[in-house]
Amino acid sequence: MTRETAGDIGETRETVVYDLDPSCPPDEVEPETPYLAEINGIVDYGIFVDLSDNVSGLVHESVLEGTYRVGDELVVELEAVREDGDLSFTPADVEEYDLVSVEHEVSLTGTDRLEANLGEQVHVEGEIVQIKQTGGPTIFHVADEYGVVPAAAFEEAGVRAFPSIDVGDVVRLNATVERRNDAIQLEVDGLSALDGDDATAARERLATARDERAEPHDVSSLIDWPALEPLREELAEVARTLRRTVLEGRPIRVRHHADGDGMCAAVPLQLALERFIADVHESPEAPRHLFKRLPSKAPYYELEDSTRDLTFALEDRAKHGQQLPMLVMLDNGSTAEDVPSYETLAHYDIPILAIDHHHPDPDAVGDLLDAHVNPYLHDEDYRITTGMLCVELARMIYPDLADEISHLPAVAGLADRSKADAMADYIDLAADAGYDEAHLRDVSEALDYAAHWLRYSAGTPLITDVLGVECDPAHHEAVVSMFESSASEAIQTQLDDASPHLEHESLDNGAHLYRIDVENHTHRFTYPAPGKTTGEIHDEQVTETGDPVITVGYGPDFAVLRSDGVRLDIPEMVAELKDEVPGAGISGGGHLVVGSIKFVRGKREDVIDALVEKMADAPIDEELSSTAPLDD
Amino acid sequence: MTRETAGDIGETRETVVYDLDPSCPPDEVEPETPYLAEINGIVDYGIFVDLSDNVSGLVHESVLEGTYRVGDELVVELEAVREDGDLSFTPADVEEYDLVSVEHEVSLTGTDRLEANLGEQVHVEGEIVQIKQTGGPTIFHVADEYGVVPAAAFEEAGVRAFPSIDVGDVVRLNATVERRNDAIQLEVDGLSALDGDDATAARERLATARDERAEPHDVSSLIDWPALEPLREELAEVARTLRRTVLEGRPIRVRHHADGDGMCAAVPLQLALERFIADVHESPEAPRHLFKRLPSKAPYYELEDSTRDLTFALEDRAKHGQQLPMLVMLDNGSTAEDVPSYETLAHYDIPILAIDHHHPDPDAVGDLLDAHVNPYLHDEDYRITTGMLCVELARMIYPDLADEISHLPAVAGLADRSKADAMADYIDLAADAGYDEAHLRDVSEALDYAAHWLRYSAGTPLITDVLGVECDPAHHEAVVSMFESSASEAIQTQLDDASPHLEHESLDNGAHLYRIDVENHTHRFTYPAPGKTTGEIHDEQVTETGDPVITVGYGPDFAVLRSDGVRLDIPEMVAELKDEVPGAGISGGGHLVVGSIKFVRGKREDVIDALVEKMADAPIDEELSSTAPLDD
Amino acid sequence: MTRETAGDIGETRETVVYDLDPSCPPDEVEPETPYLAEINGIVDYGIFVDLSDNVSGLVHESVLEGTYRVGDELVVELEAVREDGDLSFTPADVEEYDLVSVEHEVSLTGTDRLEANLGEQVHVEGEIVQIKQTGGPTIFHVADEYGVVPAAAFEEAGVRAFPSIDVGDVVRLNATVERRNDAIQLEVDGLSALDGDDATAARERLATARDERAEPHDVSSLIDWPALEPLREELAEVARTLRRTVLEGRPIRVRHHADGDGMCAAVPLQLALERFIADVHESPEAPRHLFKRLPSKAPYYELEDSTRDLTFALEDRAKHGQQLPMLVMLDNGSTAEDVPSYETLAHYDIPILAIDHHHPDPDAVGDLLDAHVNPYLHDEDYRITTGMLCVELARMIYPDLADEISHLPAVAGLADRSKADAMADYIDLAADAGYDEAHLRDVSEALDYAAHWLRYSAGTPLITDVLGVECDPAHHEAVVSMFESSASEAIQTQLDDASPHLEHESLDNGAHLYRIDVENHTHRFTYPAPGKTTGEIHDEQVTETGDPVITVGYGPDFAVLRSDGVRLDIPEMVAELKDEVPGAGISGGGHLVVGSIKFVRGKREDVIDALVEKMADAPIDEELSSTAPLDD
Repeated sequence: MTRETAGDIGETRETVVYDLDPSCPPDEVEPETPYLAEINGIVDYGIFVDLSDNVSGLVHESVLEGTYRVGDELVVELEAVREDGDLSFTPADVEEYDLVSVEHEVSLTGTDRLEANLGEQVHVEGEIVQIKQTGGPTIFHVADEYGVVPAAAFEEAGVRAFPSIDVGDVVRLNATVERRNDAIQLEVDGLSALDGDDATAARERLATARDERAEPHDVSSLIDWPALEPLREELAEVARTLRRTVLEGRPIRVRHHADGDGMCAAVPLQLALERFIADVHESPEAPRHLFKRLPSKAPYYELEDSTRDLTFALEDRAKHGQQLPMLVMLDNGSTAEDVPSYETLAHYDIPILAIDHHHPDPDAVGDLLDAHVNPYLHDEDYRITTGMLCVELARMIYPDLADEISHLPAVAGLADRSKADAMADYIDLAADAGYDEAHLRDVSEALDYAAHWLRYSAGTPLITDVLGVECDPAHHEAVVSMFESSASEAIQTQLDDASPHLEHESLDNGAHLYRIDVENHTHRFTYPAPGKTTGEIHDEQVTETGDPVITVGYGPDFAVLRSDGVRLDIPEMVAELKDEVPGAGISGGGHLVVGSIKFVRGKREDVIDALVEKMADAPIDEELSSTAPLDD
Repeated sequence: MTRETAGDIGETRETVVYDLDPSCPPDEVEPETPYLAEINGIVDYGIFVDLSDNVSGLVHESVLEGTYRVGDELVVELEAVREDGDLSFTPADVEEYDLVSVEHEVSLTGTDRLEANLGEQVHVEGEIVQIKQTGGPTIFHVADEYGVVPAAAFEEAGVRAFPSIDVGDVVRLNATVERRNDAIQLEVDGLSALDGDDATAARERLATARDERAEPHDVSSLIDWPALEPLREELAEVARTLRRTVLEGRPIRVRHHADGDGMCAAVPLQLALERFIADVHESPEAPRHLFKRLPSKAPYYELEDSTRDLTFALEDRAKHGQQLPMLVMLDNGSTAEDVPSYETLAHYDIPILAIDHHHPDPDAVGDLLDAHVNPYLHDEDYRITTGMLCVELARMIYPDLADEISHLPAVAGLADRSKADAMADYIDLAADAGYDEAHLRDVSEALDYAAHWLRYSAGTPLITDVLGVECDPAHHEAVVSMFESSASEAIQTQLDDASPHLEHESLDNGAHLYRIDVENHTHRFTYPAPGKTTGEIHDEQVTETGDPVITVGYGPDFAVLRSDGVRLDIPEMVAELKDEVPGAGISGGGHLVVGSIKFVRGKREDVIDALVEKMADAPIDEELSSTAPLDD
Repeated sequence: MTRETAGDIGETRETVVYDLDPSCPPDEVEPETPYLAEINGIVDYGIFVDLSDNVSGLVHESVLEGTYRVGDELVVELEAVREDGDLSFTPADVEEYDLVSVEHEVSLTGTDRLEANLGEQVHVEGEIVQIKQTGGPTIFHVADEYGVVPAAAFEEAGVRAFPSIDVGDVVRLNATVERRNDAIQLEVDGLSALDGDDATAARERLATARDERAEPHDVSSLIDWPALEPLREELAEVARTLRRTVLEGRPIRVRHHADGDGMCAAVPLQLALERFIADVHESPEAPRHLFKRLPSKAPYYELEDSTRDLTFALEDRAKHGQQLPMLVMLDNGSTAEDVPSYETLAHYDIPILAIDHHHPDPDAVGDLLDAHVNPYLHDEDYRITTGMLCVELARMIYPDLADEISHLPAVAGLADRSKADAMADYIDLAADAGYDEAHLRDVSEALDYAAHWLRYSAGTPLITDVLGVECDPAHHEAVVSMFESSASEAIQTQLDDASPHLEHESLDNGAHLYRIDVENHTHRFTYPAPGKTTGEIHDEQVTETGDPVITVGYGPDFAVLRSDGVRLDIPEMVAELKDEVPGAGISGGGHLVVGSIKFVRGKREDVIDALVEKMADAPIDEELSSTAPLDD
């Protein structure tokens, strides 16, 4: 209790009367001290007075004189505290007095110290980050500088408690620390929004603390690779955003490419965020509620996926009072095809971060992304894979994870056939962690195979086994070996049945052109899918001939292209074909030597003929190798 | 307590013995009053007697004389009530006596007054509408004239309490009102089925109250439209049925056409029923448990959908003791294709209501439907859309909703291109609510687009945003504008790529015939689907030529047809083709100028040739316009 | 309490001091007896001493002399037991003494007697079969010789209690029996792993009891059928394995063929196992958590299915601490196509049992299966259907079920057109249970139809209605009749539209060959699917011609084959075709006269031509009839 005098009280001790702050509790009332009270009830045997919101008591009629009205002020002194805690007062004999305010100075309890205060009353100050109306109490999730804790306030079954309080308000609670379903929860006794200077001060304090805590860890790069440095700076900013998102109690949704590099990107980030969420949030369910990861059906963010994600997010907001999520696109999300989905989410104020190494269209997506980390934006290319980037990101978010994931950049690089010079360093690094190169290749093949059969479910426990993360090493070995050998066998079956139907011709520029009808001459709806099948066929011809080779795998309404030794510039070709073959509905893209084209079924022949003509004119460049990732 | 004398007790006060009704509680036993008891146990220190099911006690051996056998009657008086509530009795000194029944007259508590009786013992009378056996107690859901409340009775873990009580029984419970998981629940102390006159009386009272409460609200039509009046009478009957269904605690399942009109029909009904359920049922989970809405995969009720629905319903009955649901078909469900599904549900006594404006086949479905509201049954047609009907229905069920949905008939009409004269009034009405016609058109396009990408999930929060219901207006504007522009762009892409492949010929009757191979010359599995794509192409040709136009969009095993200015009578054509092209597996239907046909792939050419021949013979009628809804 | 003297205590009574075992409870402390204690705290008013982990108390300073340090030993006697259970002690006047250990001899409570001990402290000994870490306590599932019970131990919210205890350990718990969520649960006070001889003894005792209880019931065969006997011996072994699996608390997953015989196999096994699980496990959720049944998408165990199953199992292990499941393959699972899935599961130590009557490839699957029951392995064939086998199996596991399922072998046989002589007996048996043959045929058709529309959901309540199990007879009749007539109608529609397109030729061997293009001349994605459609067409031709007939139904990448009267030996044909048509990607199989072939689309013509050539050379054998099951 602090007593601030309205004047100099040294000389006028007799005439001081104390005025309790509304939040003062009974134990701040001292005997033989006059307090200002307000009459709130009159009964036969006396009057009831309020000294604060929490301090009331009886003045017995035997000690009263005169008449009283409810609402009148009265100066009283404590008479007695009964066994049951009830207070009684007597009128104090004062006439003139100085009024002195008594602040209820509460000591705040940080959400990091709740366990130690189990069963006790505490005061917590923080920002409301989620309000869930249950059939019973209203659950406020309160974030202070240490963490996030659920606080239950009960008004009436299913009725919103403290309806004036919204997400984003800075509040002070007094509450009892309880264990509910065996997790720490606050039972709210009082809750009020701070306002004015108090709110500003608290908000600044929380913001400062949150900024500090959001700061990514300053980890050094796994390997010495100058090309990575500008990207790492951007990743640090992403790490900061994601950590702040966790501290703000906002959910995070990850959508990623359903292939090896995509998995190597998404799983480390998942582990880092789940662990950080568990550190920050008192509720043991928080990692499950606040993080979700899903592979994408298509190599871009389809409207079917985004409307589904949005619907779930809106339902979670309606049912659980969750904030709308932050979306993270991994190994995907850089192109114009993503725009309709991005626009949809933009109208719901769902921020989007993209980390990708596919050829980007920054004009299309730039304004829609809150962050866009892509090597092409720094004159680098696909050789810096998304998995390499995300392992760095995961370490910045949760550095304790570092040792468990140091081999994943190498797996990511092999999965996407990265020809980066730095691959040697990544492979050395993996070797230090006990993974030799042959095994890493097996992991990469096994990963691709497992990702294929998982289709569009996350399959976390299976993928972590394949990656060797949070998994017994012998078990990891066994799982990888089994999937790898199943994958090889499946690839061999495709090659055996497709090869007899490979059509060969020699182009004017001297390159070999191989065509394969993947609809009619490969097994469909099995592993490997047309894209990978075409890649495998192509690799075989490159090895066999040693010459420049182009391979086209075509289906009824698509073609996948690969070149070794011929500079195709596929994005340019696609642009030209759109003009040259009207009504073919052409779309697609890729790189110099790897890409895919879609068209309407009825124009396949025209499109492929025009395409081959261009290929025959394309310049030979024996340096070029079709090693970039190819979307199926 | 009422005491009914068996004879005239005025003179014979000494010889009266009271016989307690089995349900009498201990507090009805008065001192110094003789009661008839039955001996139910004999021990060393005395005998135990029962005065009622709830009143037992000891007669100490010190006050007993003679011998006693279990089952014997004995007249006793109250001796003492011990602190723990146990009673002791002494034998009463009576020889001859008149027996007077003591009824246990309880004052019933309505389920609307439970909150006020929290913690108290109450008596509730009602009908059992659901019995859920949990691993612990049995949960009886009891409906009285005010609402439905869950009542937990515990026998032994997982063992059915009161096994003789079934759904449909009228019962009386004495129970304690508790808050469990923060919702009101009764803790059953006693439960018995009423029988005989009591049951009849209670059942009549409940039925009367339920009938009264089921009565739909007498709302006036949104607009003055005589054509609607006979349908509104039928809708009032449907509203009554649905309100009664809610009062009976029976779940409701809505299956609806996955397009704009279907959404405009289903969502208002959803909101009305969810709000009414929340009013009626104490359990805050009730709206979620008792109402489900799903778009249908096909333009009819496929067996795959109905077996799935049925399986869920049977599982809900097995797991949760739910009654099998009432099914409501919206903007669907009028044709012979629905019959196999309807028959399946009929064998499970699942009643079906259909509200639809597609051309009906009442001979096929009539007997299987409990209500069939369709403008064609009143010599009206598709111009009265299902959305227009269901907004009226929703208002009858829950009139408070009226202002929020008054613009939806206009949206529904635009979505299905209704050419009703009343459209002008609906558009005026929407304008009053702040929606101008251009915006309504955008809503309708946005809705169709959103429904397409939602596929077959309900997506309620997204759809309500598009509809502008329970949604911030600015947000609604933004969402609509975004979806509408995405939709236009997607339509333009289809038209651009399809138009070069449009085949034209002039028919003998002078009409233009356009054909488009939608499989080979449009983008598949994207928006717009073949039906809408054909419609857009057709509209373009109608506008361009100004002449009578027929457009056929065909795929491998289907064709969609539209005509402006030629009277096709598609149902008739389909019937003739069935005969003329045997083994083509023809089915389909539609209206005079809009329809679709399915066939087996191998007979496509034959079917379309025969079809075109008929089109060439069809009479020109420039009044006719292909504006009716077309199922994709 | 047993007291084992360290020496001869007869003469030295004064000098004996007892040393309590750490687990001794307060009630083992006797007055006027000296005990060895350890000082664990010193306060103003005395010292606190420990006699065991559970026995502590105060020695008042008034009776103490000298100085004491925490950790010192002290011999004490009981002074008093206070009302609240607190003990006080006095120092005992002993100088030299013999120390005598006091073992805490507990009487174990079997998990079958927990209900009777509600609220009491009990000791339970058993094996840990599941450890679930919740956000609060750790839940240990303990299996003793009577059942399995969950035991909650709380360390700190979300923190693993007793981290040294693993699944598989044999432990002793002292715990309080509680009802939690209304099921019996133990609240752990102490838990320790047994070791050494104790562990060995307990493990042997449990193993013996479990072996005894796992013993299948010795039921006699439903009918007298010698061919079944060797299979029944194997089934008894499977029954033992499954019962033991239940007793071990391990989950069971059933994957089965999605047709009539598959359902007749899987559903009785489901009922038997669910009932046995309910008997064994205290938790009422156990049957739902420990048993799952799913029809398979393909006629073999696809990798998509197995990775999904595996992912769920790994998630259940991670989230709920469940053991990985036992897999049971029914009416499926005997061929090389199952191998990749089996290998995947093998690396996770998931045992697999297969009961099947399809032509097996024991070389491929033998090593991967823990049991493989298949009539072909006993020179019998498909005529012994999986349903017949599994009804026997279900009876061995849970004989009370026998009467409810005695008609199912007949249904299974009719569904798979078994020509076994024993069919007559099965049909008689069903007749005894009230099912005449015509009705059984209807059940079989209805079952096939329902299974088709359920696709790949289990649909248990619908299927049990069709089977007439756990279902009202009148309702069963109605459901069967409705599905059967829908099925007939659908079949007739397929036949009507397909028949005009049937191509006929006479083969050199005199047989009729009929071909039908099921892609182009039947309705796709409806009932009946191509396999059954081909069968129905074939049957019609057999009946009509009376001659040897072969029918081929072909689609873009598959053909289904049936023969009556011609010995095709399809597995042999497939093997030859693989060589003769390279690059056709041929796979497939079947029996002498029934089978299917898959190939890549582009080689269809070549494959079918080669096939027909072989058919023309195949020997006539009028005995042969194509009645075996055919996978769609």
